[in-house]
Amino acid sequence: MLYSEVSSTSAGIFTTNQIKSAPVILSQRRIVKERAQAIVVNSGCANACAGKQGLADALEMANLTAAQLGISPEEVLVASTGVIGVPLPMDKIRMGIPRIKPTRGGGHDFCRAMMTTDTRPKELAVQVDSKGAKFTIGAAAKGSGMIHPNMATLLCLIATDAVVSADFLQATLRIAVDVSFNMVSIDGDTSPSDCALLLANGLAGNEPIDFANGEDFQEALTAVCTHLAKSVARDGEGATKLIEVTVEEAEDQVWARQAARTVAGSPLVKAAIHGNDPNWGRIVAALGRSGARVREDRLDVYLNDVCVLRQGSPASFSKAEMISALSSSDTVFIRLRLYLGNGQATAWGCDLSEEYVTINSAYTT
Amino acid sequence: MLYSEVSSTSAGIFTTNQIKSAPVILSQRRIVKERAQAIVVNSGCANACAGKQGLADALEMANLTAAQLGISPEEVLVASTGVIGVPLPMDKIRMGIPRIKPTRGGGHDFCRAMMTTDTRPKELAVQVDSKGAKFTIGAAAKGSGMIHPNMATLLCLIATDAVVSADFLQATLRIAVDVSFNMVSIDGDTSPSDCALLLANGLAGNEPIDFANGEDFQEALTAVCTHLAKSVARDGEGATKLIEVTVEEAEDQVWARQAARTVAGSPLVKAAIHGNDPNWGRIVAALGRSGARVREDRLDVYLNDVCVLRQGSPASFSKAEMISALSSSDTVFIRLRLYLGNGQATAWGCDLSEEYVTINSAYTT
Repeated sequence: MLYSEVSSTSAGIFTTNQIKSAPVILSQRRIVKERAQAIVVNSGCANACAGKQGLADALEMANLTAAQLGISPEEVLVASTGVIGVPLPMDKIRMGIPRIKPTRGGGHDFCRAMMTTDTRPKELAVQVDSKGAKFTIGAAAKGSGMIHPNMATLLCLIATDAVVSADFLQATLRIAVDVSFNMVSIDGDTSPSDCALLLANGLAGNEPIDFANGEDFQEALTAVCTHLAKSVARDGEGATKLIEVTVEEAEDQVWARQAARTVAGSPLVKAAIHGNDPNWGRIVAALGRSGARVREDRLDVYLNDVCVLRQGSPASFSKAEMISALSSSDTVFIRLRLYLGNGQATAWGCDLSEEYVTINSAYTT
Repeated sequence: MLYSEVSSTSAGIFTTNQIKSAPVILSQRRIVKERAQAIVVNSGCANACAGKQGLADALEMANLTAAQLGISPEEVLVASTGVIGVPLPMDKIRMGIPRIKPTRGGGHDFCRAMMTTDTRPKELAVQVDSKGAKFTIGAAAKGSGMIHPNMATLLCLIATDAVVSADFLQATLRIAVDVSFNMVSIDGDTSPSDCALLLANGLAGNEPIDFANGEDFQEALTAVCTHLAKSVARDGEGATKLIEVTVEEAEDQVWARQAARTVAGSPLVKAAIHGNDPNWGRIVAALGRSGARVREDRLDVYLNDVCVLRQGSPASFSKAEMISALSSSDTVFIRLRLYLGNGQATAWGCDLSEEYVTINSAYTT
């Protein structure tokens, strides 16, 4: 569990999947009331599609947490991740929660405890010096499969000691999530459990941060979310490489985003990158089906900074050198220049390996 | 090449990808003129993203074919499938085309010649007895990867000796493709080469078929296309099973189609089926992100005719028996009943295996 010493302003962004887990339904309701003091998280079971029992179990989890921490049950948010369609093992939860004691150094354990198929914890804290005031933003994320826009596409739990107005907190989280977690795709599937939650408890005592003076906070929060989003993509199930796709000069921003995400999510692009195969035709084919306007005769494509298509004509490059460069990169950069407008966006994904299939073909058996 | 003894009424449906191969651009222009007498097809190279040379090469392919068959160059359609971004090996094509002699029994060779990663030819001919007249519809399809709606998502070349009006021919092909090839997904990628072409040469001498009397023709054409679409899904790259997803009582037809296709295309559903893992939560999660309206508390889900979710609550079933049933099925049936309206649709896909990744990670290297 994540615990704040005092009641906090809260913000949250939740899955767009119409099938929502019970914890998402509960936390979404509570975020509307804006105050929260703790978040309790479990992994292994998503508490989704568990019938009416699901909401009762999520509520009990919140109540047990409140009792253990001595805070109001209404101020506990819940997040669960794992298998869909099975009930929470409430006996374990009833036994476990009373044993948890929050400590100042417990952040790393918190991050590790919610991992499922993740191979590495994803966490980051930054200290910000803004106009003479100091505040900290710390965050932990988990997620490795069922990762796709829309929405945070994973669990990301963020806390800050900054004093932040409630409206700005929600707005700034939306902006940060849109350029980070919403630009990550691992497998195109969106989970019923996705959420990003942010608590701001105000203990830093800074001048309240609001729309007028929130630039530094926004920048720091976006940096934290982007770092975690890239970590999630790099740790995608079975992944061996991070893929970064940048679309430039698209007709507009919306289509730049869509194009970048489509290319980053294409199974054929992902499989080619896994095999260090510079089969760039698949990149162009994915762009072409993204919905973004494309003029083939204006298109430039770069793979790891080498131009492979210029103004719609194949550019000559050394295939042997490219294969060697791809083989030794743990990050592959794809850049598409459309020459149609001012839209620019970056998306992240990972290669598709045999291991992804192995992990996911025997997940519950 | 596919050759008709006489000039034929023609119809065609083409990729919705904005990056179109040169043969698609050429054939699409020619279909507008409605008459065609031959189709020349090559595999191994898609002739897409090949710059200005692409269209010149497609045109030369058509001209060589016309010269060999002694027909008008304007009446030759072209289809190419294979790697994107490399020019056609025109020396081979210039040598090869003059050696091809159309024969009455050559249909099977035609079908085999255009296979790429296909492991089996996909072909079917039906004879129809309609109101005293007899006509035949024969078709050959190829496709194994880069298979996704929209559009035919592969090459499908169809010929009939029926007398059919041009307008009805195009309309009936659209209807047949919409419930067959447009309901198939293998990997979510849409190819720049996709097309379905249909020639009707009229040699059967039947009463002209039009909107008023076209029911039997429509039924036969739809049956042929559906058979081939299912064959394509079953032969998806690395596939070991066909997945058939039926959505019933969706809000409307459009959403029923979208929901069925989303579930059939979900990598996590596909990987679970590959592992004979009855992890039905993934089916519900895919439905929930499809965009179709879903009420969790009304939803029924069946896996191979066994109810696993009833009115939003998990139904008890023997997991051991289900695993055993899935292991021995080469077709897996998923049925989703939404209780929201009259929309009904069926989509086909295949399981996702390690082999898919292996095939696609070293396609050009």
